[in-house]
Amino acid sequence: MINAKEQFKIIMKGVSQVINKEDLMEKLEKSITTNTPLVVKLGLDPTAPDIHLGHSVVLRKIKQMQDLGHRAVIIIGDFTGKIGDPTGKSKARKPLTDEQILENARTYEHQVFKILDRDKTELKFNSEWLSKLNFQDVIKLASKVTVARMLERDDFENRYKNNQSIGLHEFFYPLMQAYDSVELEADIEMGGTDQTFNILMGRTLQKDYGKDSQVALFMPLLEGTDGIEKMSKSLKNYIGICEDAVTIFQKTMTVPDNLIIKYFELATDIHPDEVHKIKLELENPKINPRDVKMRLAREITTLYCGKSEAEIAEEHFKTVFQKNLIPDDIDEFILSLDCCVKDDQIDLTKIMTKSGIAKSTSEARRLIIQNAVKIDGKKFSDFLMPNPHISFVIQVGKAKFFKVKIEN
Amino acid sequence: MINAKEQFKIIMKGVSQVINKEDLMEKLEKSITTNTPLVVKLGLDPTAPDIHLGHSVVLRKIKQMQDLGHRAVIIIGDFTGKIGDPTGKSKARKPLTDEQILENARTYEHQVFKILDRDKTELKFNSEWLSKLNFQDVIKLASKVTVARMLERDDFENRYKNNQSIGLHEFFYPLMQAYDSVELEADIEMGGTDQTFNILMGRTLQKDYGKDSQVALFMPLLEGTDGIEKMSKSLKNYIGICEDAVTIFQKTMTVPDNLIIKYFELATDIHPDEVHKIKLELENPKINPRDVKMRLAREITTLYCGKSEAEIAEEHFKTVFQKNLIPDDIDEFILSLDCCVKDDQIDLTKIMTKSGIAKSTSEARRLIIQNAVKIDGKKFSDFLMPNPHISFVIQVGKAKFFKVKIEN
Repeated sequence: MINAKEQFKIIMKGVSQVINKEDLMEKLEKSITTNTPLVVKLGLDPTAPDIHLGHSVVLRKIKQMQDLGHRAVIIIGDFTGKIGDPTGKSKARKPLTDEQILENARTYEHQVFKILDRDKTELKFNSEWLSKLNFQDVIKLASKVTVARMLERDDFENRYKNNQSIGLHEFFYPLMQAYDSVELEADIEMGGTDQTFNILMGRTLQKDYGKDSQVALFMPLLEGTDGIEKMSKSLKNYIGICEDAVTIFQKTMTVPDNLIIKYFELATDIHPDEVHKIKLELENPKINPRDVKMRLAREITTLYCGKSEAEIAEEHFKTVFQKNLIPDDIDEFILSLDCCVKDDQIDLTKIMTKSGIAKSTSEARRLIIQNAVKIDGKKFSDFLMPNPHISFVIQVGKAKFFKVKIEN
Repeated sequence: MINAKEQFKIIMKGVSQVINKEDLMEKLEKSITTNTPLVVKLGLDPTAPDIHLGHSVVLRKIKQMQDLGHRAVIIIGDFTGKIGDPTGKSKARKPLTDEQILENARTYEHQVFKILDRDKTELKFNSEWLSKLNFQDVIKLASKVTVARMLERDDFENRYKNNQSIGLHEFFYPLMQAYDSVELEADIEMGGTDQTFNILMGRTLQKDYGKDSQVALFMPLLEGTDGIEKMSKSLKNYIGICEDAVTIFQKTMTVPDNLIIKYFELATDIHPDEVHKIKLELENPKINPRDVKMRLAREITTLYCGKSEAEIAEEHFKTVFQKNLIPDDIDEFILSLDCCVKDDQIDLTKIMTKSGIAKSTSEARRLIIQNAVKIDGKKFSDFLMPNPHISFVIQVGKAKFFKVKIEN
């Protein structure tokens, strides 16, 4: 088993805050002495089932701890989902139905195991124990916390001050999450920095119930490919972990240079010493950041699509973008498969008109006939393309590039 | 059945507030039309089992409604008692044990039926339904109310503003009490004015659960025999409903004249028209208020001890106090039986020394031998008195009077 100090170093990579370091070190040492893996807890709210690199940050950290021998418990907050996490929200959420929760949970499960080690992971639904609590148990739970403490939470405080209503039931979200930690006897709870209040409540509540307090491990939020906003599907600055290798590779290559190290820290499992070396490389003026980013793209693509897919994606990228001098920050059009399919093949003229590359079908046909159109850097003079051909760059003339993505 | 208007008049006697009159009138009319008695609810917190006239105010009002044909449901808040009603308290109460609750409830039951009509009363423990609620039911319940609404309650608001902690569980007291009304489909809930928040919450909650809203009927607080403070055992200004006839009669005679009408309204079942007549009598300068108070004392004593006991008590009072010109506002000493018993009889010398009437046993003996001691107006020259002799006036010389009460 790797010694506690080395484990500590690996766990601390990229972490934004830990409460507290002494407890973490102590837990690691005890784990080694007693040969007992630590229980690493992550609670997931079954509301946003499309996992992207932003969500992967905590999951990758858990995977790193699994590689060190520890055990993960993923809580699907099916019971909690019935309330809706009010974290950071200015209004009470609509509760989910049982069907929605179950469907989201299945999608989650599928995606989570693209990152975590299945053999070292338990997946649990918190309804297992929360649904068994009766009124008296709930009263006991509620008695452990004061109203003032609840109103200290930023979002509650703001809503209270601004006369926006807070349903009394919303106070139970942090309590339920905290009670999960009591039930699991969690050693470490993972979360984003927006989870500080809830995770620290778990720490307190475990003590109130006579258990050892968990270590709270907070990961920073990851900016999306635009380098500015938090990665999010709605902002279209995301890299989805279920996307194809070519897309993951290409999207990673659009990440701004100043985020390369942060991505290495948060989106890969590369050892902190190695990340440190990469940082030094980047500071070397002789090194082209693009080459370092190629390594980042390869690392991330390999994590989700495997080594050979990643190599193909890299080759494709080199062919399309580098050999043909295609810039990598070109506009992307996302089209639905329905609107561009013809006789089971993809109709290029439809793509060109739908995306605005050509003003009309006749103009699109003319451009194709004139050999003015390249697909992924190669001249293309047919109107139909084999299907599926889901992500490619279309070039018209010498200077016009558009990325096209076709979705089902 | 008595018509709605007349019922309304009887119910409204002495009431401090009703929310609202229209609803009450409507319920009374519907009750007559459908020949269905109204369900009158009273929640009792099983913490203070010695019922005195102060507590009797709401019970008497319920008795009056029973006499009009309605049905009472008394809720012993055994489940609620596990939290402790925070009403008017500046600190969270200690929860009661199951044993304490059961014992208090038994005492309550015994006393309550000294006032209520047993045939028209159901006695229920709210654990019957509250203990069956699971976490999800509790969440549903909590979702019906906002944190801001809870913090509007005076005592919560004050504690919050003064940084005194409010346990989250305390918010459930009003919710439980309100849920009791949902469960019972109460038509009227009775309470003191300090119960306004809780009872009105019941009114709202019934609506949220798709039931008819109850009428809230608030009774004023009754001042004790000192005429100043709220009647309370600890302030020794109380008239207990389980006290003996002589004591009830005598104590009632110490009520200040300005409270005679209030006592008639709140502590007797006399018809409002009759109370009105008494009021006019009192305004007549030819009438001695003491005679009106005699009637009050007789009424109250009859309610709790029966007619013949009340007559004996009145006779006793007249003999002791009126014929012997004993003032009725004399000091009272309460002594425990243990400290004044001798050979199964009561040792008068001990009473005289314990109460400070005599400085020493020898002085007490001397006074008794000198025929200077009267008991209830009669000369007494023995050292021992028959036991039990629980309440009497001892007179030493011509001007010194002391009331003595011996308790087990």
